[in-house]
Amino acid sequence: MSDRLDEFQAYRERMNARMAEIDHLGLKRFINLDTAAYADGALPARQKEMLGLVASMVLRCNDCIDYHILQCVDAGWKEEELYEAFNVALVVGGSIVIPHLRHAVETLDLARRKEIAK
Amino acid sequence: MSDRLDEFQAYRERMNARMAEIDHLGLKRFINLDTAAYADGALPARQKEMLGLVASMVLRCNDCIDYHILQCVDAGWKEEELYEAFNVALVVGGSIVIPHLRHAVETLDLARRKEIAK
Amino acid sequence: MSDRLDEFQAYRERMNARMAEIDHLGLKRFINLDTAAYADGALPARQKEMLGLVASMVLRCNDCIDYHILQCVDAGWKEEELYEAFNVALVVGGSIVIPHLRHAVETLDLARRKEIAK
Amino acid sequence: MSDRLDEFQAYRERMNARMAEIDHLGLKRFINLDTAAYADGALPARQKEMLGLVASMVLRCNDCIDYHILQCVDAGWKEEELYEAFNVALVVGGSIVIPHLRHAVETLDLARRKEIAK
Amino acid sequence: MSDRLDEFQAYRERMNARMAEIDHLGLKRFINLDTAAYADGALPARQKEMLGLVASMVLRCNDCIDYHILQCVDAGWKEEELYEAFNVALVVGGSIVIPHLRHAVETLDLARRKEIAK
Amino acid sequence: MSDRLDEFQAYRERMNARMAEIDHLGLKRFINLDTAAYADGALPARQKEMLGLVASMVLRCNDCIDYHILQCVDAGWKEEELYEAFNVALVVGGSIVIPHLRHAVETLDLARRKEIAK
Repeated sequence: MSDRLDEFQAYRERMNARMAEIDHLGLKRFINLDTAAYADGALPARQKEMLGLVASMVLRCNDCIDYHILQCVDAGWKEEELYEAFNVALVVGGSIVIPHLRHAVETLDLARRKEIAK
Repeated sequence: MSDRLDEFQAYRERMNARMAEIDHLGLKRFINLDTAAYADGALPARQKEMLGLVASMVLRCNDCIDYHILQCVDAGWKEEELYEAFNVALVVGGSIVIPHLRHAVETLDLARRKEIAK
Repeated sequence: MSDRLDEFQAYRERMNARMAEIDHLGLKRFINLDTAAYADGALPARQKEMLGLVASMVLRCNDCIDYHILQCVDAGWKEEELYEAFNVALVVGGSIVIPHLRHAVETLDLARRKEIAK
Repeated sequence: MSDRLDEFQAYRERMNARMAEIDHLGLKRFINLDTAAYADGALPARQKEMLGLVASMVLRCNDCIDYHILQCVDAGWKEEELYEAFNVALVVGGSIVIPHLRHAVETLDLARRKEIAK
Repeated sequence: MSDRLDEFQAYRERMNARMAEIDHLGLKRFINLDTAAYADGALPARQKEMLGLVASMVLRCNDCIDYHILQCVDAGWKEEELYEAFNVALVVGGSIVIPHLRHAVETLDLARRKEIAK
Repeated sequence: MSDRLDEFQAYRERMNARMAEIDHLGLKRFINLDTAAYADGALPARQKEMLGLVASMVLRCNDCIDYHILQCVDAGWKEEELYEAFNVALVVGGSIVIPHLRHAVETLDLARRKEIAK
């Protein structure tokens, strides 16, 4: 059975494939730069994913939140650690973040269910 | 000799003292909540300071950037780790973050000089 | 018959209940602080709801707009008064607010229909 | 067969008609000012539409992006020119713009298909 | 003796005079629309000034905050009422608003001192 | 005699030189990508500078505005064309852009005076 996370990932993959067809060096380089920003370096990848998650929450982008939560779950962050990151984002960004907090909590629950079902 | 970081800290302390005189429960509680968000918990304080720094950079607030850089330096984060955080903020937030990146690099340099001078 | 306002309220209630299960003091306190910010005080609750509405419009958050419109209608604000608030938000926030203005006008119409149907 | 662009345009027209019923001079004037901002003047209309598109992308408003892409296609901008505008928006606005870039690429593809089908 | 509020007002007046020389109908109309948005109507002017203040705080624009605080003081809003508006802005906009809250508190203090000195 | 544009350019050059010393591939690549985004391509460089200007205005970054105005003046854009771009930014971004419009008008005046003095 498919849920909104599956739909998001399918859409994301389809459009990323479509964008890869576009012959524009700047667009291609930006996508590569974006991927590289979360690779292991002086900071481990998992920590950078959490930074990306909090940045996405205060900038209030649900797709970005979903992407980084999935990466954070894969990277082994636990619920109580992610709730701490949610809290920093909420305090910095204010109540305008609350609808995105609801979304993030739901996404995290969906992601966990998928992990257990594996 | 005083620099812009000293001035920022003096202004911040003076206005925080002024705000503490204001008899409004909501304002007082928010300030407490803000402080509490960066205390040790399921995530260590130093990691939350770095989350706060990246959030401040993508939201483009120089005073918030200065505050969190000083906290991050106190918490023992090294230059190459902070540059990684700067990079995540730059990629997420885009070139509009560059003036704040300049500011952050300068603040970090100033903060290190103060540490050595101690 | 259910409309998008009913769905929004059902989702909001379900996720608020889910968030109430999360054992994180910071998150709980923020939610309480948010509720308290709109209680009667030196300014009446109804006036603060209108402030929350305009803040939500310039920050372009449809869920927040819906929530505050429902509160404003309950608090007795009339159409022509709410249109004035919409106008301030539009002028301050610019044409990027227009899609949220459309949403707000639709929400207000839906809310009035519900009131009459009571 | 109707797609999301048709739905967007139908909703937009319906709500614009609804808003035209509202007797508020400020709202009416703003809508007129918004229309006038994209008319031929010292800069041709087509160039201003592209400015509106980039502004909409960095401010991350999908409805505004759709509207300006349709106008840009009507005004004769070619794919490779629009990709350049997308790239400026991506670099200025950062990776938080990527979900809106996906949306914009999809909208442009849909708009072209409609043009060919005419 | 001149302070930062006097300097802001002098700069504002000088640049508004300079902008009035620019022969662009759109710019002129926007300025008029902005002024008209805060005139008495279905909502009294003083209430709209407070809406403008909260919008300015959550959008984090110090010049706009200063302008609306001066208007609110002229309109007779009392300290404890303005603190309530500050609190709504802080809760909606989050800790990123705190530097602007410090600025707003300082501006309000400066404005009161000027009133007494009259 | 030096003015705020000279100071901005001196600071910008000094900090860009400092940032060039930082050994972080991601940061270096982003800076290169940013430069490349405004090079001649399917759109001429001068048009992309104007896109960058409007993006900077709606995102309300004075340093970015100054940089792109100087580039636009060098690229041969005339006053009445730049006022059109200012107007699009103002309508899209709203009255919160007005302090940045004042800044932009002043910067353009300063830049013209420098050109004449050459």
